[in-house]
Amino acid sequence: MPHISLPTFIPGIRSLVIYRPETGKYLYELVQLLLRGDSPLSTGERELIASYVSYLNNCQFCYQSHAAAARCLYGDKEKLVDEVLKDFTTASITTKLKTLLHIAGKVQKLGKEVQPEDIEAARAAGAEDRDIHDTVLIAATFSMFNRYVDGLGTTIPDNVSDYVAMGERMSSIGYVLPNQSI
Amino acid sequence: MPHISLPTFIPGIRSLVIYRPETGKYLYELVQLLLRGDSPLSTGERELIASYVSYLNNCQFCYQSHAAAARCLYGDKEKLVDEVLKDFTTASITTKLKTLLHIAGKVQKLGKEVQPEDIEAARAAGAEDRDIHDTVLIAATFSMFNRYVDGLGTTIPDNVSDYVAMGERMSSIGYVLPNQSI
Repeated sequence: MPHISLPTFIPGIRSLVIYRPETGKYLYELVQLLLRGDSPLSTGERELIASYVSYLNNCQFCYQSHAAAARCLYGDKEKLVDEVLKDFTTASITTKLKTLLHIAGKVQKLGKEVQPEDIEAARAAGAEDRDIHDTVLIAATFSMFNRYVDGLGTTIPDNVSDYVAMGERMSSIGYVLPNQSI
Repeated sequence: MPHISLPTFIPGIRSLVIYRPETGKYLYELVQLLLRGDSPLSTGERELIASYVSYLNNCQFCYQSHAAAARCLYGDKEKLVDEVLKDFTTASITTKLKTLLHIAGKVQKLGKEVQPEDIEAARAAGAEDRDIHDTVLIAATFSMFNRYVDGLGTTIPDNVSDYVAMGERMSSIGYVLPNQSI
């Protein structure tokens, strides 16, 4: 049960942005720009970073929904999403993405965990400033969403299959405020 | 030295929002609304929560600047800012604020750390839904800012006294994007 009175039957972050649309507006605009706007990282790679950080933070709602979105975006290669969540070091992804996921994992712990050698490894694998910037900001942003969603005890969907529909919506129309009348 | 090429002589979050104003815009709008907009918590209380979480995350820039803003907002009672950072349980603040700082400290660790008994204690001390919501979202938001600021290795001011001017600006004009031509 949520820690405060939230709309019933609406899970996770969606219940919170309906509760407080004023802050919800900026949160959705931020995540839409970060995950769908201009970036050297593909939308699939960005969803993968969001899901990975949420997985490390044990936030079921965020990890499952963003994994579902990543699977849609990766299409034929959807299996690599679960490979990454299991162990990204052996997953069928580029070395560059591995170095960025390593940085994201450091940010999940704490900002100061990121060391110059982590950045050097990413640059050696082809990462440029914007790759590193976007990775750090996505990891930081999901460290926020995970805490907001779980810190207020929001509900999670009854069925794991519900995440499939969420992933389809997130990968096609992106992040738009839910209808407040729902 | 920052991990990516950022404007020189500009510390902390300000260097990041100049580097990437598109995301910076939403980050500043969010923090302005959260810390200065409508809330049952005073602006001083909200800055105190922001500073406390940043202190726990060992983010010098955020902790020092928001402590300076809180001192300005508390005026004659500015000493309680340092009391809170040292040990909020013995500080000269209300029981309600102590229970909210306790929740903020849980959120700093992870969202799931917040337990029903933490919420019950806050309600027993007079906290209502919006107090709890705003506390959790402020704590979550600074868990993001701290990771963004430190994860990219932004610089900190040369002199601790520089934070005094920052605190005055933050407490008077709030959070507005720095001039990009600076």
